[in-house]
Amino acid sequence: MSATVLYMSMSLDGFITGPDDGPDNGLGTGGERLHDWLINSAGELVRPSGPSGDILDELFATGAVVVGRRTAEIVDHWGGDHHNGVRIFVPSHRPPNDAVAAYPRVTYVTDGIASAMAQAKEAAGGRDVLVHGAYTAQRALEAGVLDELEIHQIPVLLGKGRRLFGELPAGVELEVRRVVETPEATHLRYRVRR
Amino acid sequence: MSATVLYMSMSLDGFITGPDDGPDNGLGTGGERLHDWLINSAGELVRPSGPSGDILDELFATGAVVVGRRTAEIVDHWGGDHHNGVRIFVPSHRPPNDAVAAYPRVTYVTDGIASAMAQAKEAAGGRDVLVHGAYTAQRALEAGVLDELEIHQIPVLLGKGRRLFGELPAGVELEVRRVVETPEATHLRYRVRR
Repeated sequence: MSATVLYMSMSLDGFITGPDDGPDNGLGTGGERLHDWLINSAGELVRPSGPSGDILDELFATGAVVVGRRTAEIVDHWGGDHHNGVRIFVPSHRPPNDAVAAYPRVTYVTDGIASAMAQAKEAAGGRDVLVHGAYTAQRALEAGVLDELEIHQIPVLLGKGRRLFGELPAGVELEVRRVVETPEATHLRYRVRR
Repeated sequence: MSATVLYMSMSLDGFITGPDDGPDNGLGTGGERLHDWLINSAGELVRPSGPSGDILDELFATGAVVVGRRTAEIVDHWGGDHHNGVRIFVPSHRPPNDAVAAYPRVTYVTDGIASAMAQAKEAAGGRDVLVHGAYTAQRALEAGVLDELEIHQIPVLLGKGRRLFGELPAGVELEVRRVVETPEATHLRYRVRR
């Protein structure tokens, strides 16, 4: 069964960026600390050894991506290919900017988060759907269309920045599915209870 | 070596109470969910079976308590005895209310968090010091006098409430010392790096 899975690196105090994040400072000031477990000092993705590498393999085995517009635009839609040519869905109320026309795998979905998730599940062909972005995660939780969370909890208190969860209109019960302990991150897998 | 250790139950989204907490609603609306792992439906403390019970045993093996005034007053200073008659230190800029005079083990410390921690370590006689309360934790982190954190991370998103960490003036690096996985809580032990 295909599941929609939020993958996010988060500090113990709940931040996914440092302060003052924006188009030219995607992770905010100091926020790159959250990606130390998979990005080297040259800014390149490096598969970690040990259990963290296995978690990253799972991420790259997903069959479609749903990503918030803010993240998508900051990274220029990953040049149209996040990994392995899987389709990328961007829920947004506004039409895409012109540059997106060059990326045939990128689809803007203007009729809501539930539609974006359904289209992504269909495109994933039985594989999981990678979900990314704080706003997208919050809306998906509200709409009841997020199935699981894989939080890479980083042993740091950032103190300031953009929060993954912010405030939600209602509580959400979770079930612990797996905890993977490494020095660089605690990988916490939850299923959303409905 | 005696260590000052913050013990707190926290939702995945960082809350230690539900919304609208106050003197008559200490855990806020719905916040009792965070204590399900050790409080039964009658409001009584029950030692959990399994690894969570071992964590609770560690908490009750501490030799002194440092607790924020807000929490202390809401619970009436636990009637003067948190556990085993160990001393209780309350950092506060204001003198205690009159009721505290009846509790010889409770000491208000008006010259700062560092002093409260030092007095508690002295009183603990080589055992660890139990630290409790969000405001107290934040001030102790800022002052560099919190040694470790034991976070009981509860598999729930509360959505609203009082945050454990709020905003801090500077980041704090942590070291993962231990992760204990149970269905009811993920017990995360960190050492504060200095």
